[in-house]
Amino acid sequence: MADQKKMVDAITSRDVDFAKWYTDIVKKAQLADYSSVRGCMVLRPYGYAIWENIQKLLDGKFKATGHENVGMPMFIPESLLQKEKDHVEGFAPEVAWVTHGGSEKLNERLCVRPTSETLFCEHYRNIISSYRDLPKLYNQWCSVVRWEKTTRPFLRTTEFWWQEGHTIHETAEEAVEETLQMLEIYADVLENHLAIPVLKGRKTEKEKFAGARDTYSVEAMMHDGKALQSGTSHYFGDDFAKAFDITFQGRDNTQQYPHQTSWGMSTRVIGAIIMTHGDDNGLKLPPDVAPIQIVVVPVAQHKEGVLEAAKEVTDRLKKNWRIKLDDSDNSAGWKYAEYEMKGVPLRLELGPRDIEEGQCVLVRRDNRQKYFVKLDQLETEIPKILEEYRQAIFQIAYDNRANKTYTATNMEELAAHAEDGYIKAMWCGALDCEMAIKDQLGVTSRCIPFEQEQIGETCVCCGKPAKEMVVWGKAY
Amino acid sequence: MADQKKMVDAITSRDVDFAKWYTDIVKKAQLADYSSVRGCMVLRPYGYAIWENIQKLLDGKFKATGHENVGMPMFIPESLLQKEKDHVEGFAPEVAWVTHGGSEKLNERLCVRPTSETLFCEHYRNIISSYRDLPKLYNQWCSVVRWEKTTRPFLRTTEFWWQEGHTIHETAEEAVEETLQMLEIYADVLENHLAIPVLKGRKTEKEKFAGARDTYSVEAMMHDGKALQSGTSHYFGDDFAKAFDITFQGRDNTQQYPHQTSWGMSTRVIGAIIMTHGDDNGLKLPPDVAPIQIVVVPVAQHKEGVLEAAKEVTDRLKKNWRIKLDDSDNSAGWKYAEYEMKGVPLRLELGPRDIEEGQCVLVRRDNRQKYFVKLDQLETEIPKILEEYRQAIFQIAYDNRANKTYTATNMEELAAHAEDGYIKAMWCGALDCEMAIKDQLGVTSRCIPFEQEQIGETCVCCGKPAKEMVVWGKAY
Repeated sequence: MADQKKMVDAITSRDVDFAKWYTDIVKKAQLADYSSVRGCMVLRPYGYAIWENIQKLLDGKFKATGHENVGMPMFIPESLLQKEKDHVEGFAPEVAWVTHGGSEKLNERLCVRPTSETLFCEHYRNIISSYRDLPKLYNQWCSVVRWEKTTRPFLRTTEFWWQEGHTIHETAEEAVEETLQMLEIYADVLENHLAIPVLKGRKTEKEKFAGARDTYSVEAMMHDGKALQSGTSHYFGDDFAKAFDITFQGRDNTQQYPHQTSWGMSTRVIGAIIMTHGDDNGLKLPPDVAPIQIVVVPVAQHKEGVLEAAKEVTDRLKKNWRIKLDDSDNSAGWKYAEYEMKGVPLRLELGPRDIEEGQCVLVRRDNRQKYFVKLDQLETEIPKILEEYRQAIFQIAYDNRANKTYTATNMEELAAHAEDGYIKAMWCGALDCEMAIKDQLGVTSRCIPFEQEQIGETCVCCGKPAKEMVVWGKAY
Repeated sequence: MADQKKMVDAITSRDVDFAKWYTDIVKKAQLADYSSVRGCMVLRPYGYAIWENIQKLLDGKFKATGHENVGMPMFIPESLLQKEKDHVEGFAPEVAWVTHGGSEKLNERLCVRPTSETLFCEHYRNIISSYRDLPKLYNQWCSVVRWEKTTRPFLRTTEFWWQEGHTIHETAEEAVEETLQMLEIYADVLENHLAIPVLKGRKTEKEKFAGARDTYSVEAMMHDGKALQSGTSHYFGDDFAKAFDITFQGRDNTQQYPHQTSWGMSTRVIGAIIMTHGDDNGLKLPPDVAPIQIVVVPVAQHKEGVLEAAKEVTDRLKKNWRIKLDDSDNSAGWKYAEYEMKGVPLRLELGPRDIEEGQCVLVRRDNRQKYFVKLDQLETEIPKILEEYRQAIFQIAYDNRANKTYTATNMEELAAHAEDGYIKAMWCGALDCEMAIKDQLGVTSRCIPFEQEQIGETCVCCGKPAKEMVVWGKAY
């Protein structure tokens, strides 16, 4: 147990310093490393494997809903970026500019894509001429660059990995439907696969994406009560089409503007997994994306037959799960601590006595609950235990959110919980009130939830008649 | 047949203008499109789907040999790029430079990675301290940028997609073994999956990768006799380790330098598929990477029961193959031409009489050979036909290469075939002779094949005693 204690001591306690606890986990679980490139991280094998599993999940759902992957250039000529006024205003201040190719100075600067609406628009203009060419349901897996002042691994980095969906439709109705469909897919992945409860809603005018008519988001609450925007979906109407002169011949033979959407989810969601589920022993990974779902730890592995039995059970379970046998010389205590740090959902212990009795011990990462399971029952018992685990970590997150969600009918009540979670409050819809709340209390509007409640009649800030309920909070 | 003729007419004949034929296919089969970013292409859904299938193949083989994926920054600080002398000399002239982040001028320029040896070295320096930390077998899927003067889709573009493997080992022997293992994996993928015969060998000093001790390559011959380097694997010895000060404590407790490799394959290989297998009707895709392996074309689809039967067989075969039913209003002739253009290996025709007889017609893309197959025999017959198809297109490429491979014992003989294929000739090993051959005849050394032959005793150029046989040719 000395080894185990040593490792556990090495992480800052979550309740003592949440920010330090977070970076400790990123480092100790070997998810990411710093690089000499300002604000850029190295995604290490364990972190990348989580991302690959998230990619597989999302990509499968994108393809099942008719989307196709493409590859766009990583550069955007300055003149192309400038075509849509709101878009360039939002992004130009935070892009990286390429000015030279080799020793030659470029005639026109190129920015490294911060997002690719402009490139997709240019391509759509080339390939769309008739309603028969619509819709195009495209997605791209890539990394993008936004010049950030302060960065933290996964949460905010100069370069990050993501997918960006870009679709173009014959009618506004179809585009709106697509926007909401993709938000539902994000909610599904977060809740049912990553065990992270989300709040679905629409962003205020102030918080929406540069160039969008409407931005929808799924917001997750971290253990410390702060919000993390975990996926966004934008409806553009025909604004980009007009700026880029994309038209098509409609069914009635008139020239029309098509309607567009975009939507994205990034490696940021790995930050959400860490801060939603992690504890003082390290990560707790949702089984669907854990690179190792089960770790096999032989007990008294020098004794005859133990390693052989451990290998046999590992090989057998490999057909159904991502499983790893650790037969290294490290102590069992060291191994327990190591795989708890890495958030492996289940540990399978197997010693000489277990083998005699034809059983093994399964230990859940979340609560260390033990299950004595007959070896020939593993294929039926493991799915049940993994599902119990998934539900349990979802429930903890759900309860945390419930405990940290408040209502406010005036600024004093809003102020009382400003540091501590979500605050539901009525809003008149005026930018002035939104700004006042931000400036005075340091919280921002997270979203206008789809599920509205009637908390009062008047705006929490100005007292004028309220239009809708907003959820306020501090955000990462 | 009018439609079919129209489409076929639209492609330049392969024998009339090979370069134009190539770009026609890229465009008509919707593999890629041009963008307004100089030298950068848009990888369209059909081209990207081929790349995804190649990725799956390679990634599976990388993982089966113990490699892990990581994500590295896309930028390299100028000082980091400069650490290895030969490497920076080779790449600095062709990189894109980022000089500004937002409105701020950077203190140090960043280049967009042309390849990532330097970034991996910096990371290895951070994470390696003991022989216990070795080997690290890493790979990255990404795009890289090299500022090219003249570009062609897939073959040479400013930005291209690839994988770059980077490994680091305790001993030189292990690193050499890794280098050769990865070359074999490339050869396996090219020959057995993409049906492209390759020549394996070592590059001359002049042609090797900037900073490598040895570069190995797999060379493919295109239909026009030109060579296409289709995958490379580099052995670095401990040169990079010394330049980046990467050391580890060895088994004998001394500080030692580790030994490194890198290896890459890119979207260029899609160019190889086009130019190895394509004909005047369009692409011919190898079944293992074809986005659509079988297209189902209903004949007289307005007749009762035809569409239903076509759907039924499509749904059934979907379990084993990537299959598409085209039930659009286009004529059968148009559909035949369209999917020949797209290189779909097998067409399944199903009409009213076929249904009566419980059969269908399978038509091979390469030679339009027809197979009348009972519907309940499809699962056993299709694999045989696809394998015959794969072998047939491999054989055509193999014969083309054999017909265009020559031997030369003097400069006249070398000159006689300089435009037309591979020329095997003995070489003294001197750079002067290599340069003279290049300058006088316009051919470059493709490689020093692993399988050496004794064509003569003296260098084809200077007449001095020869050291080894080199294969010369024009290259893309």
